Amino acid sequence: MSDLAPAIVLVRPQLGENIGAAARAMLNFGLEDMRLVGPRDGWPNPAARAMAAGADPVLEAATVHEGIGAAAADCSFMLATTARVRGLDKPVLTPEAAVAGIRARAAAGERTAILFGPERAGLENDDVARASAIVSVPVNPGFASLNLAQCVLLMAYEWRRQMAGDASPPPQSRPDPMHAPAPAIEVERLADHWEDRLDAVQFFFPPEKAPYMKRSLRNLWSRMPLSRADVQMLHGALRQLVRGR
Amino acid sequence: MSDLAPAIVLVRPQLGENIGAAARAMLNFGLEDMRLVGPRDGWPNPAARAMAAGADPVLEAATVHEGIGAAAADCSFMLATTARVRGLDKPVLTPEAAVAGIRARAAAGERTAILFGPERAGLENDDVARASAIVSVPVNPGFASLNLAQCVLLMAYEWRRQMAGDASPPPQSRPDPMHAPAPAIEVERLADHWEDRLDAVQFFFPPEKAPYMKRSLRNLWSRMPLSRADVQMLHGALRQLVRGR
Repeated sequence: MSDLAPAIVLVRPQLGENIGAAARAMLNFGLEDMRLVGPRDGWPNPAARAMAAGADPVLEAATVHEGIGAAAADCSFMLATTARVRGLDKPVLTPEAAVAGIRARAAAGERTAILFGPERAGLENDDVARASAIVSVPVNPGFASLNLAQCVLLMAYEWRRQMAGDASPPPQSRPDPMHAPAPAIEVERLADHWEDRLDAVQFFFPPEKAPYMKRSLRNLWSRMPLSRADVQMLHGALRQLVRGR
Repeated sequence: MSDLAPAIVLVRPQLGENIGAAARAMLNFGLEDMRLVGPRDGWPNPAARAMAAGADPVLEAATVHEGIGAAAADCSFMLATTARVRGLDKPVLTPEAAVAGIRARAAAGERTAILFGPERAGLENDDVARASAIVSVPVNPGFASLNLAQCVLLMAYEWRRQMAGDASPPPQSRPDPMHAPAPAIEVERLADHWEDRLDAVQFFFPPEKAPYMKRSLRNLWSRMPLSRADVQMLHGALRQLVRGR
């Protein structure tokens, strides 16, 4: 996956803490290629390390560059994340469309990058102008407070979500045969058991309603996704309720 | 949108800061219905307010409850977020599939909730047993460090992404309210009723297995797509079995 994965380029990041938090966000979803353009407080930065909490390999492998051009020298498709879209004549993509674009390029053997701006002001127009397209996270227009690491997190999530969508869904392991769906014959026996016992305590009353009530109860058992363990427990509960007398 | 949006239920949250950060994460993507179950440091909490940074309306409207049943009393579809899936026989969904499920329920007029556990330990099995399904964010198995607010953020993002993706399907007509899915509070009461009566007849035996058996039984009720009519019938059947003595 890593060969296809986009590089995460932090442009003029201010706080080391945020660089560390971005590294964590990346690694949560399997992104490992971090590139820093002009980090304000120099590099390496102990505050980044402290915040990375285990994502140190991402920080250790991070490369530092003077400009976006150098940072993304090997990338032929670059996306600029911005909160505000500022009249640049450039496609504005949702994270979903952006990642789809990245994947299409990667599938063609191209390397890709996503640019994230400084915490306070975001990317400048000159930065955005270098990108192939703009990515804008569709936040609530009445309240937008995504920080740098959250924005990285959402893009990384979107990447992994789409990558996973390609693979066949992971089989749900059901090692215990008792958790397998109960075969119809077992559900039938369960329904019989309950009907018999409830008949014995005059549950199906008044008599003219009994057929309808019995059908409803049968329908209930057969609509339920019962496992074999469930069936066994429902037999046991009923036996014990009757025996409890 | 807010009528269809899921409630965010924070179960036994520890730090006020994280409640505030969760409120921000929610509001970023237009979710406003926060419910708190047993917040450790009481409520209201000044630390939450300080962290909310403008998402105060979410905190001010937040409701506090003693248990999950009460917090999600009006919700008939409840999802439990967990990092680890722990051998409960319950569907495990990606955020994408979970939100699709929420939207389908919402389109049918049902209210829904997503449960998030305490920061340190996450939801307990007894909490998860109350949910209809499990949501697990597909993080890197070699590095998973999502915090509470990040997890809320990803679910909220996924919600908004799908809402933006297409118009919600037209509401399905459900003429008979008794055939509507039972709200969580009714399922909770049904589970209580059965547990009490089965306790009285020593069903949960031997004692060291009782907690496991009780959880399995709760898990059974919450996994089943019970209608209100089903719940009523299962109450009635139990009453009659006990009375039959």
